[in-house]
Amino acid sequence: MDAPAVILDRPQLAENIGSAARIMANFGLTDLRLVSPRDGWPQERAWATASGANWPLDGARVFDTVADAIADLKVVLATTARPRETNLPVETPRQASARLRAAIADGLACGLLFGAERAGLETQDIALCQGIVTIPIDPKFHSLNLAQAVAINGYEWWTGRADAPPDKFREGPPPADQASMMGLYGHLEDELEAAGFFFPPENKPSMVRNLRVALGRAGFTDQEVRTLRGVVTALSKGRGKVLERLARKKADPSG
Amino acid sequence: MDAPAVILDRPQLAENIGSAARIMANFGLTDLRLVSPRDGWPQERAWATASGANWPLDGARVFDTVADAIADLKVVLATTARPRETNLPVETPRQASARLRAAIADGLACGLLFGAERAGLETQDIALCQGIVTIPIDPKFHSLNLAQAVAINGYEWWTGRADAPPDKFREGPPPADQASMMGLYGHLEDELEAAGFFFPPENKPSMVRNLRVALGRAGFTDQEVRTLRGVVTALSKGRGKVLERLARKKADPSG
Repeated sequence: MDAPAVILDRPQLAENIGSAARIMANFGLTDLRLVSPRDGWPQERAWATASGANWPLDGARVFDTVADAIADLKVVLATTARPRETNLPVETPRQASARLRAAIADGLACGLLFGAERAGLETQDIALCQGIVTIPIDPKFHSLNLAQAVAINGYEWWTGRADAPPDKFREGPPPADQASMMGLYGHLEDELEAAGFFFPPENKPSMVRNLRVALGRAGFTDQEVRTLRGVVTALSKGRGKVLERLARKKADPSG
Repeated sequence: MDAPAVILDRPQLAENIGSAARIMANFGLTDLRLVSPRDGWPQERAWATASGANWPLDGARVFDTVADAIADLKVVLATTARPRETNLPVETPRQASARLRAAIADGLACGLLFGAERAGLETQDIALCQGIVTIPIDPKFHSLNLAQAVAINGYEWWTGRADAPPDKFREGPPPADQASMMGLYGHLEDELEAAGFFFPPENKPSMVRNLRVALGRAGFTDQEVRTLRGVVTALSKGRGKVLERLARKKADPSG
């Protein structure tokens, strides 16, 4: 066993079981256990909601009681916002995932226990666990969907797995060197000078500086510098060409 | 504004909008924006799914395009697992939430953009954003439910709140809003079109996208946007004027 089991206590809606299975698959969790699902098991709507994440549902086991469902597990954490009088340690999902990883690295079978949609977990079942996980949420609205609770804990489990930052796709090519940037600046400023942009002339140094600061912040790549030089050329020469063509046309309407 | 807006692009199922609203309420998010919801708006099933988290739904605003929906925002991050060819920085939800907190501490209105259930986000809309958020999930099953994607980002936003805001000033005025940037892009692209820059024509969409991504990275201020619009005008019209003047001079050398 290389990931914690997910135990749903008396889940009411098949859709929530399916949504839980789907998010389990997103985060590398496969062992789903159901304690007395209200509408029996299996239920088609669970598969319909899982969007193809069938394996946690296909392999799901059903138990009569929480005690039965967790009998083979060594470390079970109860997800609840109501610790009641159990006096168990209360952890965030992030702390809990570190604890579960450590336990699994030690060869201990682990589980995350979730209560029913409205009723939550009973104190007697929480008391069978080794700790409590409480998802920090806004006290102004703490009605958390069951599958969302599985999601947050699954996400912390998955992202904590490597404890290394997740792979990035790519950082993209590096920024162009200063010589290329100076080439762009010079090109742009020459064309702006020719176009009469720097007016009054005594403001040219600050206008040049402001343009360079603004463009420099983008960290353009070499390719982007080439594109922008094409832009400058097109804007400065292209319009002229259009005007020339118009002028020629006027001079010789038959052309 | 003390939390990022949540923008859902072309959401298909009212249930997903309701689930998103519910998890938004769990994590202190209130500003919900819908871009062309498939089945129209409002829809009763959204409220039924929200389990009492009515306020994001009651206040939800509907827009025709992503550009309209984010027009007033300064920092918008696109949630997608497919960065495509945009060359934007890719961050985890945790990194993104730190970036959003820093921006909001600086008084900048922020948003998180989510794509449609199956189609995801279009590259042209990603190109309007300042970064990409990718939720690390198991590559073996990456079909992530829309509301679950909102949940993971909302959770990171909420749990990161406690972190002290980073110790940094932003030098100078804030970045221009998206509406100003769209104005600049439109102006530049019109002039480039007139100048025959987009060649061959079938490459225009990718050329436009590359330009927007490169320029968008700079985080131009309002003043800089005005300056750059002056640059575009000067380059496109100024050269024409110079040519006209030369032409006049040639026609009447005494002028």
